Amino acid sequence: MPEVRIVLVGPKFEGNIGAVARSMANFDFEELYLADPCEIGEDAYRRAKHGSDVLDRAVKVRTFDEAVEGCFLIAGTSGIITKGDRNYTRVPVPVREFAQHLSGYSEKVAIVFGREDIGLFQEELNKCDLLINVPTSDNYPVLNLSHAATLVMYELFQFGNFPKGPEPTERKEKEYMFSFFDDLMDAVDYPQQRRGDTSVMFRRMMGRSIPTKYEYNTIMGIFGDASKIIKNGKKWE
Amino acid sequence: MPEVRIVLVGPKFEGNIGAVARSMANFDFEELYLADPCEIGEDAYRRAKHGSDVLDRAVKVRTFDEAVEGCFLIAGTSGIITKGDRNYTRVPVPVREFAQHLSGYSEKVAIVFGREDIGLFQEELNKCDLLINVPTSDNYPVLNLSHAATLVMYELFQFGNFPKGPEPTERKEKEYMFSFFDDLMDAVDYPQQRRGDTSVMFRRMMGRSIPTKYEYNTIMGIFGDASKIIKNGKKWE
Repeated sequence: MPEVRIVLVGPKFEGNIGAVARSMANFDFEELYLADPCEIGEDAYRRAKHGSDVLDRAVKVRTFDEAVEGCFLIAGTSGIITKGDRNYTRVPVPVREFAQHLSGYSEKVAIVFGREDIGLFQEELNKCDLLINVPTSDNYPVLNLSHAATLVMYELFQFGNFPKGPEPTERKEKEYMFSFFDDLMDAVDYPQQRRGDTSVMFRRMMGRSIPTKYEYNTIMGIFGDASKIIKNGKKWE
Repeated sequence: MPEVRIVLVGPKFEGNIGAVARSMANFDFEELYLADPCEIGEDAYRRAKHGSDVLDRAVKVRTFDEAVEGCFLIAGTSGIITKGDRNYTRVPVPVREFAQHLSGYSEKVAIVFGREDIGLFQEELNKCDLLINVPTSDNYPVLNLSHAATLVMYELFQFGNFPKGPEPTERKEKEYMFSFFDDLMDAVDYPQQRRGDTSVMFRRMMGRSIPTKYEYNTIMGIFGDASKIIKNGKKWE
C-alpha cells in the first residue's frame, strides 16, 4: 500500500476536522494536510478523541497546490456522478475499486476532500489525476465531510495496513509526461479549442488507471517520439 | 435486501443522532428507532440536513426490547473483538460478510448501535442474534457512533444498489483502438522486441482505467492522426 496523505481543502467546521482526525487514528492514517482551514479549537479536539495526535501534527498550508506537493497521484473526491459521457472531468472511480488498485501501488498518494458546501472548485478538480466516489442514494448523494473521509479510509484499510511507502516521487516528472501528450496534440494540429478539455480527459484516464512510473515513461516516450518525428519531418533527428 | 431498522440505544449527543439520520438518507434507509435517547433539538437537525425527514419520523421508545420489537434478526454492533473463543457473545462478524449474507435475506432486521461511551450492556448484547464489527486499527478501534453506523449502512447499500456509470466501451471498438496504438509504435520505429510487452502494458493500463466510448474515440483519433502523418510524411493526406 502507498503512503497516503489526507487533504482537506477549505474545511469550514472544526468539528469535521476533529472527526476526520479521529477516523484517521481508527484506520492507521497519519498525515493530514489542511489547506486554508477554519480555526482549530476545543470542538475539533473534543471530536478527535484519541486522534488528537493527528490533529497536533496536521500541516496547515494556504493553497491546494501546497497541500498536494510531493504526492505522485492526486485523487479528488466528488459526490456528483455524471450521467452523460461528455463531462469526463467528472467521471469518478468507485472507492472500493480505487482501494483495490492502490493496494499494488507504492507512490505517494493525496486524497483530497473539498469544502463542506461547495466541494472542490473546477480548477482544483482539473488538477486531480482521478476522482473517486462513494456510491450513495441518488436521492441524497451528499455525504458529511467526515463520513466521506471515513468511508474512503475504511476501504483503503481493508486492503491492508500501510507500511511506509518509498520516498515521495516528484510530481514535476509526471507533469512533464503530460506535456508530451499536449505536444502530440500540437503535432497533429488538434483543434485549439478542444485541447484544454482533452488534456484534462487524458489526465483523468491515466489517473483512473493509476499507472506505475515505468508505464508512464513508456507511453510518454512513444508520444514524445511521435511528436518529434512529426515536427521535424523525419524519423531521427 | 431485507427491510432494515436502525436502532440507537441510549445516544447521549443529539449531534450524533442527526448525523446518523443524514447518513440514513444518503444510503436509502428510512426506519430509525431511538431507545431512551437524549433530547433532540437544533443541533440534531443541523447535522441531519436532508435527513431531517428521517429524524421527524424517528420512533422514540424507552427500552432495547421495545426498539427491536417486530424484527426477526437482531444484529448488535461492537467495537471490541474478543481474541479468545470463550466469550462467544462477543465474537463478531465483519460487516462486509454480514452485508453479503443479508442480501439474500427477506426478514426484517434490526441493526443496533450502543451508547457513545459504553456501547451495549451485556444483557443487551445477549439479546442480539449476532454481533457485527467494522475492522479498524488495533491501536484505536473505537469509532464515533455516526461513523460506525455510516460504515454499516454503506456496506449494506453496496449489495443492494449499483449506480449506473457512463456507458462502457464495446469490445470491438476497443480492439480497434488498440490497433491504433500498435500503429503508433510502428510509426515511431519502436523496438520490435519490446512491442508485444508494451502493447499488453498499454491494454492493461486502459483496462484499469475503464474508459468511456468518448474517451476511447478521442485518444484513438489522436493516435491515428499521428501515425498517418508520420507514415505519409505530411500533415494531411
